[in-house]
Amino acid sequence: MSQEISRTDGFKDECGIFGIFNHPEAANLTYLGLYSLQHRGQESAGIVSTDGSKLYSHKGMGLVADVFSSSDISRLYGNNAIGHVRYSTAGESHIRNAQPFVVEYSRGSIAVAHNGNLINSIILRAQFEAYGSIFQSSNDTEIIVHLIASSKESSLVDRVIYALKRIKGSYSLLFLNEDTMIAARDPHGFRPLSLGRLKGSWVVASETCAFDLIEAEYVRDIEPGEIVVINKDGIASYKPFPKAQYTPCVFEFIYFARPDSTIFGANVHAVRKKLGERLAVEHPVDADIVIPVPDSGVPAAIGYANASGIPFDKGIVRNHYVGRTFIEPKDSIRHFGVKIKLNAIKDIIKGKRVVVIDDSIVRGTTSRKIIKMIRSAGAREVHMRISSPPTISPCYYGIDTPRRDELIAAKQTVDEINDYITSDTLGYLSVEGLYAAVSEAGGSFCDACFTGRYPVDIIKEQNAPQLALFK
Amino acid sequence: MSQEISRTDGFKDECGIFGIFNHPEAANLTYLGLYSLQHRGQESAGIVSTDGSKLYSHKGMGLVADVFSSSDISRLYGNNAIGHVRYSTAGESHIRNAQPFVVEYSRGSIAVAHNGNLINSIILRAQFEAYGSIFQSSNDTEIIVHLIASSKESSLVDRVIYALKRIKGSYSLLFLNEDTMIAARDPHGFRPLSLGRLKGSWVVASETCAFDLIEAEYVRDIEPGEIVVINKDGIASYKPFPKAQYTPCVFEFIYFARPDSTIFGANVHAVRKKLGERLAVEHPVDADIVIPVPDSGVPAAIGYANASGIPFDKGIVRNHYVGRTFIEPKDSIRHFGVKIKLNAIKDIIKGKRVVVIDDSIVRGTTSRKIIKMIRSAGAREVHMRISSPPTISPCYYGIDTPRRDELIAAKQTVDEINDYITSDTLGYLSVEGLYAAVSEAGGSFCDACFTGRYPVDIIKEQNAPQLALFK
Amino acid sequence: MSQEISRTDGFKDECGIFGIFNHPEAANLTYLGLYSLQHRGQESAGIVSTDGSKLYSHKGMGLVADVFSSSDISRLYGNNAIGHVRYSTAGESHIRNAQPFVVEYSRGSIAVAHNGNLINSIILRAQFEAYGSIFQSSNDTEIIVHLIASSKESSLVDRVIYALKRIKGSYSLLFLNEDTMIAARDPHGFRPLSLGRLKGSWVVASETCAFDLIEAEYVRDIEPGEIVVINKDGIASYKPFPKAQYTPCVFEFIYFARPDSTIFGANVHAVRKKLGERLAVEHPVDADIVIPVPDSGVPAAIGYANASGIPFDKGIVRNHYVGRTFIEPKDSIRHFGVKIKLNAIKDIIKGKRVVVIDDSIVRGTTSRKIIKMIRSAGAREVHMRISSPPTISPCYYGIDTPRRDELIAAKQTVDEINDYITSDTLGYLSVEGLYAAVSEAGGSFCDACFTGRYPVDIIKEQNAPQLALFK
Amino acid sequence: MSQEISRTDGFKDECGIFGIFNHPEAANLTYLGLYSLQHRGQESAGIVSTDGSKLYSHKGMGLVADVFSSSDISRLYGNNAIGHVRYSTAGESHIRNAQPFVVEYSRGSIAVAHNGNLINSIILRAQFEAYGSIFQSSNDTEIIVHLIASSKESSLVDRVIYALKRIKGSYSLLFLNEDTMIAARDPHGFRPLSLGRLKGSWVVASETCAFDLIEAEYVRDIEPGEIVVINKDGIASYKPFPKAQYTPCVFEFIYFARPDSTIFGANVHAVRKKLGERLAVEHPVDADIVIPVPDSGVPAAIGYANASGIPFDKGIVRNHYVGRTFIEPKDSIRHFGVKIKLNAIKDIIKGKRVVVIDDSIVRGTTSRKIIKMIRSAGAREVHMRISSPPTISPCYYGIDTPRRDELIAAKQTVDEINDYITSDTLGYLSVEGLYAAVSEAGGSFCDACFTGRYPVDIIKEQNAPQLALFK
Repeated sequence: MSQEISRTDGFKDECGIFGIFNHPEAANLTYLGLYSLQHRGQESAGIVSTDGSKLYSHKGMGLVADVFSSSDISRLYGNNAIGHVRYSTAGESHIRNAQPFVVEYSRGSIAVAHNGNLINSIILRAQFEAYGSIFQSSNDTEIIVHLIASSKESSLVDRVIYALKRIKGSYSLLFLNEDTMIAARDPHGFRPLSLGRLKGSWVVASETCAFDLIEAEYVRDIEPGEIVVINKDGIASYKPFPKAQYTPCVFEFIYFARPDSTIFGANVHAVRKKLGERLAVEHPVDADIVIPVPDSGVPAAIGYANASGIPFDKGIVRNHYVGRTFIEPKDSIRHFGVKIKLNAIKDIIKGKRVVVIDDSIVRGTTSRKIIKMIRSAGAREVHMRISSPPTISPCYYGIDTPRRDELIAAKQTVDEINDYITSDTLGYLSVEGLYAAVSEAGGSFCDACFTGRYPVDIIKEQNAPQLALFK
Repeated sequence: MSQEISRTDGFKDECGIFGIFNHPEAANLTYLGLYSLQHRGQESAGIVSTDGSKLYSHKGMGLVADVFSSSDISRLYGNNAIGHVRYSTAGESHIRNAQPFVVEYSRGSIAVAHNGNLINSIILRAQFEAYGSIFQSSNDTEIIVHLIASSKESSLVDRVIYALKRIKGSYSLLFLNEDTMIAARDPHGFRPLSLGRLKGSWVVASETCAFDLIEAEYVRDIEPGEIVVINKDGIASYKPFPKAQYTPCVFEFIYFARPDSTIFGANVHAVRKKLGERLAVEHPVDADIVIPVPDSGVPAAIGYANASGIPFDKGIVRNHYVGRTFIEPKDSIRHFGVKIKLNAIKDIIKGKRVVVIDDSIVRGTTSRKIIKMIRSAGAREVHMRISSPPTISPCYYGIDTPRRDELIAAKQTVDEINDYITSDTLGYLSVEGLYAAVSEAGGSFCDACFTGRYPVDIIKEQNAPQLALFK
Repeated sequence: MSQEISRTDGFKDECGIFGIFNHPEAANLTYLGLYSLQHRGQESAGIVSTDGSKLYSHKGMGLVADVFSSSDISRLYGNNAIGHVRYSTAGESHIRNAQPFVVEYSRGSIAVAHNGNLINSIILRAQFEAYGSIFQSSNDTEIIVHLIASSKESSLVDRVIYALKRIKGSYSLLFLNEDTMIAARDPHGFRPLSLGRLKGSWVVASETCAFDLIEAEYVRDIEPGEIVVINKDGIASYKPFPKAQYTPCVFEFIYFARPDSTIFGANVHAVRKKLGERLAVEHPVDADIVIPVPDSGVPAAIGYANASGIPFDKGIVRNHYVGRTFIEPKDSIRHFGVKIKLNAIKDIIKGKRVVVIDDSIVRGTTSRKIIKMIRSAGAREVHMRISSPPTISPCYYGIDTPRRDELIAAKQTVDEINDYITSDTLGYLSVEGLYAAVSEAGGSFCDACFTGRYPVDIIKEQNAPQLALFK
Repeated sequence: MSQEISRTDGFKDECGIFGIFNHPEAANLTYLGLYSLQHRGQESAGIVSTDGSKLYSHKGMGLVADVFSSSDISRLYGNNAIGHVRYSTAGESHIRNAQPFVVEYSRGSIAVAHNGNLINSIILRAQFEAYGSIFQSSNDTEIIVHLIASSKESSLVDRVIYALKRIKGSYSLLFLNEDTMIAARDPHGFRPLSLGRLKGSWVVASETCAFDLIEAEYVRDIEPGEIVVINKDGIASYKPFPKAQYTPCVFEFIYFARPDSTIFGANVHAVRKKLGERLAVEHPVDADIVIPVPDSGVPAAIGYANASGIPFDKGIVRNHYVGRTFIEPKDSIRHFGVKIKLNAIKDIIKGKRVVVIDDSIVRGTTSRKIIKMIRSAGAREVHMRISSPPTISPCYYGIDTPRRDELIAAKQTVDEINDYITSDTLGYLSVEGLYAAVSEAGGSFCDACFTGRYPVDIIKEQNAPQLALFK
């Protein structure tokens, strides 16, 4: 366990959470639930269980299948458990930041698993430190626990409400103590969180694909601003927050969620196909073949092919045996980073006018490498089509996008990007097209990454006079 | 290093091989070549290199990316190297069987990497043992080395010819000693093996996808019965065997090879699409959607959709974060083995008449589970279409198929299989259809798994009076 | 990283600490210092270093030589470092308890390494929790850091003084922040702590044997109640506490410290020989041979032999290749726990009247097994001699002794113990004899384990009204 | 598993072997037996067991306690097992050389564990290679197996006799196949090998200390030139070799064996004390204190002290927490290699005239460092006394001594050595004194390391015309 200790500024992480209450194999099912949510975080994994008298924890760096052995699972006693998978930016990938986060405080032990990002974490942390508190991790979750511990409320749910009233930003949360599991979702409902039922057990998961594997039945979403308390008396719902605008993350549909999940009321794969269909209408082109950048571009490519009548084909193969790092020869291979994952099929592409479908362009460097690879395979023309609008603003609510100055669309026009990535033509889906495609899931979304309009004002919150914490 | 020691009966393994001669980063490029061939064997990996004076070896159990660290690569000195990836049936998965196989004998050291299976291994082994030889592994390759060592020929190539004249079966081979690399392919040409060029270096690989990653240029296939000798004097070709019928393995096209490879003169993905097109002609059905069993069913499903006009869609999601083993709850999940990998997308499938495309049916149990999963997702009808003929006979030439009595098509009619797997209709591609699809690659193939006609008679060889080994 | 989370009651641990200021190889020398102090704790090890701008930490479970690789050491940047080795009772042996403990608080980062035990930890922890603080470990050190963080003082030394004024019990402490190292010893001076000099660097270590390995020169002990502050301006000493009685731990001499160390002003080996000499005077016996229980009984056995004239011999061999656990056969071996470590030499013992020297008897079970082993080896008589008085009370100041009801001498007379362990005669050193042997080190000691007289009253402290923490 | 493949010249290794026949916990007891013999080899360990139908093997690099987990032991099925611990010189420390060595040949499987060294291995190997055999390891044992496999005899014992008649050198051997365990000792009886009884089971071990731990009873030594066959019919003894001179290794007494073992008929500790007593007579000196170099010098120091009347003391402490490697600071510590293990106790040594007892001097560098350390601790005089004669010749029979030109006593007089190691006086035991001390064990020994007289002529054997192997 090595680490570098430094003051942190609120970094970003992507996560998946899962919880189950009242099942004799709680830890084993949580393990499987996390495995289904593995795409939401591949860096660390953890489970905390309870048998009513104690909490038991196992966490580690790496994939779920590697972090847990069967003996680890067998020592996570009890019928209730919560789990967490996490991805974070380099430099902060330490076991001390792995979740669920567990502490002791005046009322006993508590474990927390968090998906999202707080935007008033720096000021809250500063306030706590000013009052003498100490911090051992660099993640937001420790602040939530400090708030719970500093609450004078006598019931766990009231302490959780006390804490959540003081934090700003995005959160889907699971809490576990010796007798109660609590699920909570921020008032804007940024991140998904669903409630399921497995015979006599309640299940909560970031995405419904976790229910499918363990054969739980989807019941409903945890609502924005809702706090659901599950204990031996059953299930209770609290809505202690003033009504806020519902702004679920539209990027979950575009890229992040698994295609077989239903989030915010719509199936992800179906939405992605519609994005592709809309894209074909907005940016038609005369071409011979539509190919996706695997795997995330596949549904939109199917949609584009359907709407345009141009045949779909799999022109790029993805190698899934990818390890943490690859040993690159000194006499460097061109575009090594892309080639180690992707290879174009020459026989499919040679001499063709190719439409390439991807879900987004971040820095532009990967698109440039992919287009060069497709041209090397003999494509006559390469038409890039993106199933989302230009990404112009960073996310502060739980998606790992880079800083604004690294986003190519924040600095360049579509024509300039087309030149940079060397495509013949480039077309992005419009914001209107995006909303048309996701209409099944309702009308309002957080689209800050495409529009720069943030539902919760970052600057304001980080500078605002705060609620007094210790009065 | 644990193992069980027992007499073996010539078991099967699937493998990929790679070699490079005269490159300053020979070991690093071999590592990347093996990574590209990882689909041919995920159980063990090894590289042997030479700097002209010694051989250096590193082998281990697991994936290429896990077996080799950069310090391992840095200690594989020299400009020449060969490598091997291997999959084998349980019980024989020991480090002692990992390849390349390295020994010392009267003429120095030699390393061998073998893709294929010998069918006269038992009798050869018995003969060697009768003369007092000892065996430390259970793989065929040790026999080849014994033959080389027992040869009285003075040059390496003549000793290799001596050995190959005495073995029967399928083999694509790479040999390496201090100054020479030799590539050889059996007279029937069962397994693929290609020659490539990377600036001043020669490269040999099981499939051309390995050339793409390292930016080598495909030159030609090693011919059936050809022995290619590469040393400081250049490259030389030998054809010491009587002409035999060319019978490359047709199953490489159907399932085993990577879609972006060109083997036996045709692109694998293109052939698979044609298999799907033919299948649509032979077994049409009135349906709403064509979905593949991922990943191997994708190209044939595209072909089926194209030829039938029924829309293609991705109705099943595959989870690629699969580890070695999964911890299954005691209260068992139905069809756990399939569910841990695959999940049907309800919104795509519900209410639809679905054509499901898979490449083959082995025991039928997996197909049965997949069809049940698709029905649970709400499919109105499920029509199973298989892009190859019924698998009725085991392979003795390098593909890991089970014994005949485990092959469902060896014992049941298509109707009975349809009943068992619970599809509404079931259609297999005909042998004629298969040949039509692979016509680009030439007219003759080993199709023993579908027809029971073996190019080299197993029974005869195992019982035949042998060439005297020690006269 | 697995753990069980539970409320703790102030458990015991044994530790060694080491620090060095202003040396270009600070982390490497700390690693060697910890290796010399390995006998003080074999369960976890950790080092924190600083380069003036950040703290760098590496901790792990296991021996120093296993926890640190050379690349770990190379990433512990900077010229200043502190380290810690720790042993603790089962159930609390988790990485979260490994030290040095590192946190961020309002003034920056701080690392702490602690040898000792607080006796007012429960009440302090309760007070902190009452004010909303959270705890992540079960060790006392976290309380010290909470106190430092809650101090309003502006300098680090004043915050440390603020904290130390509020804790009771035994502590030898090292603190490190970005620019300062602080060493502190409690007013009673329970645990040893010495100051050394290595050219231009200051070194602090639990025992002087750490100086010998790195060739540092012993300067003096850190005095009871002294706080030594080392930074770029040099070294400064503070004595902010009211004078208390100096009561260093006499058990360090008897068992815990390394024989080549000088602690509390006397060499450990020399004191142990004197204990043996005194023992010979107090409990003479007519015998043929004096043998030690290795390794800790050796010096006292030499002393006993010298004083009695009975020849010393090594009648018991110790196997040092001991791992964490041993796989015992089901058909159990008698006295397995002792036999795996010790074996009597029959030829030395057979037919002899044997004096066996050990440093102490805790539960009596090990002594009983050793005596049976010696009798099995053919001893005619076995006379047990213990180089300390009967152990009748647990230690609350940093030695891992069991609860009172597990101490055989707390419940049984010497005669009863003699019967239980099956010796022919049994003699303990008297308290007077003990003081005579340690006289070189001064007159007063903590001898609570032998007398039940605790220099700091446990019961009183745990129940006393505390200094208000947050006024 | 990394390795360098090269032609080898017959290197040296030190080993311990253990076997048990007919015990339900055969593997577990073998594990404990090997643990007792750990001092004979710390580099690799292995066990092969059999349940009558198959052999089961587990081997690994490292200490016994690290190589075997309880699940490893549980998979070593059956009532019969043999095991091996091994130390070898660097460069050949590969898992492929770990023993027991297991192969298949015409008669089934066989496992071999070997302690000793063959001196005609190069010529035998060359002959086998000339006949076409291949070699996969660099150890002698593979040759023994080739010989067994090449034998035409029909019974295992006759094949073993056939093989042993063709090898020269030192060997204590254990063989195991599905139904029989065979123990053999070379005609000169170089290495120890003892037979024991544990209820209904037979046990064989390199040293009797292994019997003590598992509570087996010593029965007798395997005799020089004896082959003991143990199977379900009981135990049978064969003596197929012409009588040779009995020349057990005297160095086992001086250094290698464990003090609590009885080998060649005498207790090791008792012999070592006599060596010290003789040394005191031959090289008296006026001094204040006798101290051993721990741990091997302890018994001789006790003997010297007893005979001379000078008090024995433990002036040097040994740190037993030694790992594989230590990270040395760049600003090097003087005599780091010695200091990491040993530390002199100043208070014991200061101002004294010290007699230092060690068992032997090899290169002289370690003695030089130890003496400097003792002088730094303040010794007034340092008198080095060695409990064996000068080591002038390398061992070819199983002890890891360096080449002749690295042995200081092969090149320098005692006076010159005294100057080099900086002692005031230096005294070696005479050969006559050595024989006097070991007289209890009989009159003849291999003393080649001290006299250069080899019982089996190395040069002659390596060049002699051999028995035809394949006629």
